[in-house]
Amino acid sequence: MKAVRVHAYGKEPSLDEVDEPKVTGPFDVLVEIGAAGLCRTDLHVIEGQWADIQNPQLPYVLGHENAGWVREVGSAVHNVAPGDAVIAHPLVTCGLCIPCRLGDDSHCEDAVFPGLNVDGGMSDLLLTNARAIVKLEANLQPIQVAALADAGLTAYHAVRKAQRLLTPGTHVVVIGSGGLGHIAIQALAATTPATITVVDRSEPALELARSVGSHHTVNAAEGSEKLLREVQDITEGGAHVVLDFVGEHSTPEQGTAMVRNRGSYSCVGYGGELRIPTIELVSREIEVVGNLVGTYKDLVELMALTAQGKVTLETTTYPLSAVNDAIHDLESGNLVGRGILVPGS
Amino acid sequence: MKAVRVHAYGKEPSLDEVDEPKVTGPFDVLVEIGAAGLCRTDLHVIEGQWADIQNPQLPYVLGHENAGWVREVGSAVHNVAPGDAVIAHPLVTCGLCIPCRLGDDSHCEDAVFPGLNVDGGMSDLLLTNARAIVKLEANLQPIQVAALADAGLTAYHAVRKAQRLLTPGTHVVVIGSGGLGHIAIQALAATTPATITVVDRSEPALELARSVGSHHTVNAAEGSEKLLREVQDITEGGAHVVLDFVGEHSTPEQGTAMVRNRGSYSCVGYGGELRIPTIELVSREIEVVGNLVGTYKDLVELMALTAQGKVTLETTTYPLSAVNDAIHDLESGNLVGRGILVPGS
Amino acid sequence: MKAVRVHAYGKEPSLDEVDEPKVTGPFDVLVEIGAAGLCRTDLHVIEGQWADIQNPQLPYVLGHENAGWVREVGSAVHNVAPGDAVIAHPLVTCGLCIPCRLGDDSHCEDAVFPGLNVDGGMSDLLLTNARAIVKLEANLQPIQVAALADAGLTAYHAVRKAQRLLTPGTHVVVIGSGGLGHIAIQALAATTPATITVVDRSEPALELARSVGSHHTVNAAEGSEKLLREVQDITEGGAHVVLDFVGEHSTPEQGTAMVRNRGSYSCVGYGGELRIPTIELVSREIEVVGNLVGTYKDLVELMALTAQGKVTLETTTYPLSAVNDAIHDLESGNLVGRGILVPGS
Amino acid sequence: MKAVRVHAYGKEPSLDEVDEPKVTGPFDVLVEIGAAGLCRTDLHVIEGQWADIQNPQLPYVLGHENAGWVREVGSAVHNVAPGDAVIAHPLVTCGLCIPCRLGDDSHCEDAVFPGLNVDGGMSDLLLTNARAIVKLEANLQPIQVAALADAGLTAYHAVRKAQRLLTPGTHVVVIGSGGLGHIAIQALAATTPATITVVDRSEPALELARSVGSHHTVNAAEGSEKLLREVQDITEGGAHVVLDFVGEHSTPEQGTAMVRNRGSYSCVGYGGELRIPTIELVSREIEVVGNLVGTYKDLVELMALTAQGKVTLETTTYPLSAVNDAIHDLESGNLVGRGILVPGS
Repeated sequence: MKAVRVHAYGKEPSLDEVDEPKVTGPFDVLVEIGAAGLCRTDLHVIEGQWADIQNPQLPYVLGHENAGWVREVGSAVHNVAPGDAVIAHPLVTCGLCIPCRLGDDSHCEDAVFPGLNVDGGMSDLLLTNARAIVKLEANLQPIQVAALADAGLTAYHAVRKAQRLLTPGTHVVVIGSGGLGHIAIQALAATTPATITVVDRSEPALELARSVGSHHTVNAAEGSEKLLREVQDITEGGAHVVLDFVGEHSTPEQGTAMVRNRGSYSCVGYGGELRIPTIELVSREIEVVGNLVGTYKDLVELMALTAQGKVTLETTTYPLSAVNDAIHDLESGNLVGRGILVPGS
Repeated sequence: MKAVRVHAYGKEPSLDEVDEPKVTGPFDVLVEIGAAGLCRTDLHVIEGQWADIQNPQLPYVLGHENAGWVREVGSAVHNVAPGDAVIAHPLVTCGLCIPCRLGDDSHCEDAVFPGLNVDGGMSDLLLTNARAIVKLEANLQPIQVAALADAGLTAYHAVRKAQRLLTPGTHVVVIGSGGLGHIAIQALAATTPATITVVDRSEPALELARSVGSHHTVNAAEGSEKLLREVQDITEGGAHVVLDFVGEHSTPEQGTAMVRNRGSYSCVGYGGELRIPTIELVSREIEVVGNLVGTYKDLVELMALTAQGKVTLETTTYPLSAVNDAIHDLESGNLVGRGILVPGS
Repeated sequence: MKAVRVHAYGKEPSLDEVDEPKVTGPFDVLVEIGAAGLCRTDLHVIEGQWADIQNPQLPYVLGHENAGWVREVGSAVHNVAPGDAVIAHPLVTCGLCIPCRLGDDSHCEDAVFPGLNVDGGMSDLLLTNARAIVKLEANLQPIQVAALADAGLTAYHAVRKAQRLLTPGTHVVVIGSGGLGHIAIQALAATTPATITVVDRSEPALELARSVGSHHTVNAAEGSEKLLREVQDITEGGAHVVLDFVGEHSTPEQGTAMVRNRGSYSCVGYGGELRIPTIELVSREIEVVGNLVGTYKDLVELMALTAQGKVTLETTTYPLSAVNDAIHDLESGNLVGRGILVPGS
Repeated sequence: MKAVRVHAYGKEPSLDEVDEPKVTGPFDVLVEIGAAGLCRTDLHVIEGQWADIQNPQLPYVLGHENAGWVREVGSAVHNVAPGDAVIAHPLVTCGLCIPCRLGDDSHCEDAVFPGLNVDGGMSDLLLTNARAIVKLEANLQPIQVAALADAGLTAYHAVRKAQRLLTPGTHVVVIGSGGLGHIAIQALAATTPATITVVDRSEPALELARSVGSHHTVNAAEGSEKLLREVQDITEGGAHVVLDFVGEHSTPEQGTAMVRNRGSYSCVGYGGELRIPTIELVSREIEVVGNLVGTYKDLVELMALTAQGKVTLETTTYPLSAVNDAIHDLESGNLVGRGILVPGS
């Protein structure tokens, strides 16, 4: 079969002819890939930034946002059957450790991560397991949802954790209206009555925010002081929740300043540092919350919202063989929405 | 009546003869002080550190940890009656703002703070209101509980918020076994099955910790690396919750390093700064929680634990007229336990 | 001023000329009534069904769903000012008992209930207190919201408690699409992503349900067996939550049968009896939840939804002097939506 | 190997020589039984009461409360190894259905139940899977814990769900101080600060209750009216939580009458019927909660409490070959504590 493989860090991946993976274990699921999302993380993988962390054996197949149709299942699999349209949770988890037993499977102590440390889904076929598989509703196609498997899931997970705080009359601020942020806005609008304010430095990003459910937008390019004053006004004294999809430069500082007493600053993006005097934490009694990917149940819920038409993605489709075109478009800022690779096309 | 008043910042307070406060409003409560706690905050008040924040009109009466007996109540008060032994919540709250309506009264938008911005309780009489008053069980005396009104309440509040995370088999680390910390240890032992590990730089403080319920202790004076390794071993991979009663020097950094994936670092002490890369927040999905004083209901719960003998305080008693002796003993480190001032003695 | 008073149970109330109430206490609020809702409870009051429970001194003024404008406030009131448009929570609460301190004020141990045990709001003026008053957003008028003060509040409270269970992909069933039920449907649609199925015996009621956000409707008039089978199909194995606004005849039995394993049957209506074998509770691990009125904070949240246009009411307006026409129309089933009495018109 | 098998309902089981089970699947775990608890459910199985519900193929091996040492594991098992001392959760769950994915595995949609519908553990060996296995702390032996696998787990599960309501100063009532009840009392004392009141009709049962942590006891044999009055006095107006381990005769009615406004009646025992007017549910806003077995995580927590010495069981030990003596002792009321069968002895 065809597969997009990394042979050496710093070099373009190539489309290779490789052996098909086989079902050997009882929980194995072999998926015919219908669509594989291209993500900025893939660029970092190619550059070698993840080499030491995930330590895959080269060459290996890229692709951690995968959807398609089940071709074959192991003997113990009863939640899906050949022919089912499915999306794959990015982690292949054990089901035995305490995090798995609590429904907190994104912290599985014995997971593998196809596309990061074993062969991924930019290929004709992906081998994963039954614990990763979510069956799609009849009205959904793999090509519509693949990019939700990681980016969308991560955004939804942060929204999910904040929902209990977002009662009628509350304010949520979303920092960053990109790939994750614009999913978060849709999920917030679909699951909470909160008033949504979106902050970004790009006017097109703010336009996207408005088109998917944001009630207010603030352009952050005009300076931190003006930004904080405008958010303070809109939120009538501070946000109940801030979701930060940037997590670097000045956003951690701005985000914690935006929450009101007893508010929650929830961080998804990373790269920077949070610096805050402990007297700020204490006197305003605020909380800071980290977020990592999402659980299997989060993906089930996100697919339910997607099937109901409440979450949609803008995408640009490429044949698998054009993977390097897609990569170049992403690097150069010419890729509109999320890039989706389609095998056999 | 007699009252300990601050006349000028940087000078010793004096015991003055002043007019008795009067019940004028329908929710007023006039308390004959049985005991008033002396707190390090009082030293900071005298030094003038709170002058700009609380802005009291000088001279005014010190004392924000107060217990005694009700002498007189306003026309609308029905929760206590003259003669009742009581403890006073440090804040006199409005009952009308949203925080008050949610039981989150320590964030009242219209509170006064006797002893900080109006006359406090180092005096024969304190004027407060019915929303601040908790009636004591028959087996409790004001002198036993006064110092719980602020220090104990703050410690309990942080424990209270962490309780849901502290299921059987979990680990909690308490940083700082001083006035607040040793109340927290007792409250943890009384309300959770968690294994308690206490960290402090003082051997006597660790001895106190062991005597009130700590299962493990670690002396922090031997360096951060050794400390973190020992805590890692004791907690089998990191604490589920860390309660930091220091909040300065290296404790925010150490405390966040001590929590395991999905753990909670809860900060009560202040003075320092928390610095943490956002990738740490995200990859381990940890949370950081600030804590401010406690609610009225927290004080009711703390009094229930105290009446059951599950929380006790070591104290040294001084007559009100010896307030400056007590202050000198506190400043010089010669005050054992909490200092308690007793009027009329 | 004019007021609608009950002089004797079993007799029509009359429009009397009475003395105006006066502000005497510091938390008193005197409201110029803009609209007073007429409720089926008023009919029961007139018949004498509440005589022993609430024990008002006759004659007294009806009206427990009140909205208007503040005319005068007591000395301690700072949350509203004369001229403000407001809605009144039905209970005048103390702010001192434990339920009040926890934000659970609908269980206040020392409340009065204007319109049930003291003078209500079918009048030019209502005397209540600052703890009952919610200020309206600028885009809301008393006439739009009065009937939400009790009926809407009760419906919202039940929805509020169920929200945490209603994640994407879940099913909620609403039994009874009347005055309360149709508010619940709107609140569910505004605050949760759950699929809403409405059960009623009246086709117009089901039509109303569809017009305000119900996704599925089932006519209960065709028998219990067919009803349960259809609900089972729609909910793919049982509802996660059932909200029962009838609470009599066969609905408690049907409602508990409709929930899936670990589901919640939440009861608002009353009059009947719940009978369930303990093996049913245990083997399906279901819960049964009672609901009473709503809290002050619930009313604040409901007003936020109303100001956002997410909850609306169909009403028919009568001048206060036509109260007995309104009562006859309600009794005879000729009153469309909720009846609203407007003083001075 | 030797195994206690049911050959025909209504007849004594017999100790048979049978083939050893084999590890065939990758998650299989083969356990050398150290102790198998005898439970009243086993009597019901023998009588045939469970025949239609669980539908096992006769003959089959009894025993659903099992502990021992791992002999062999399947290829995918990494949470235990041969030689480990372990206890088995009563259900062998799939890890794929939504309840399993949420940590709610006792509602697994594809479980088997050794001892009820497949071969159980009254035998030299038990075949179960890795998802059922909890490793014991070094200070615990199988014989100490076997009877906690079902009875203890069920009691703990109900306590676990009630913990959030049991803050300092609250009251919990336990109805029935038998096999489950006396575990519940210990778990309540270990994990909550609530005041525990135990109700039973047997004086020795109440004595047991007092010896394991009950603060108050009430003998229910003296009539319902006296019982309710005494509980009302002890709880100062009603319990915050009632845990009913009887669930038949008059206990559902008494239990719901014992809770205060907003209280929770939690039912574990069954056999009877709950009858309650909906006005009672609504006007007091109480909840009724069913409880079924416990989750895997519950068993992990219960083992943590047991290893800490906070939960202990009184037991009487029999060799496996004396199973019918044990059964007769249980039937005749001559079995003190829980009966434990030990193979090879």
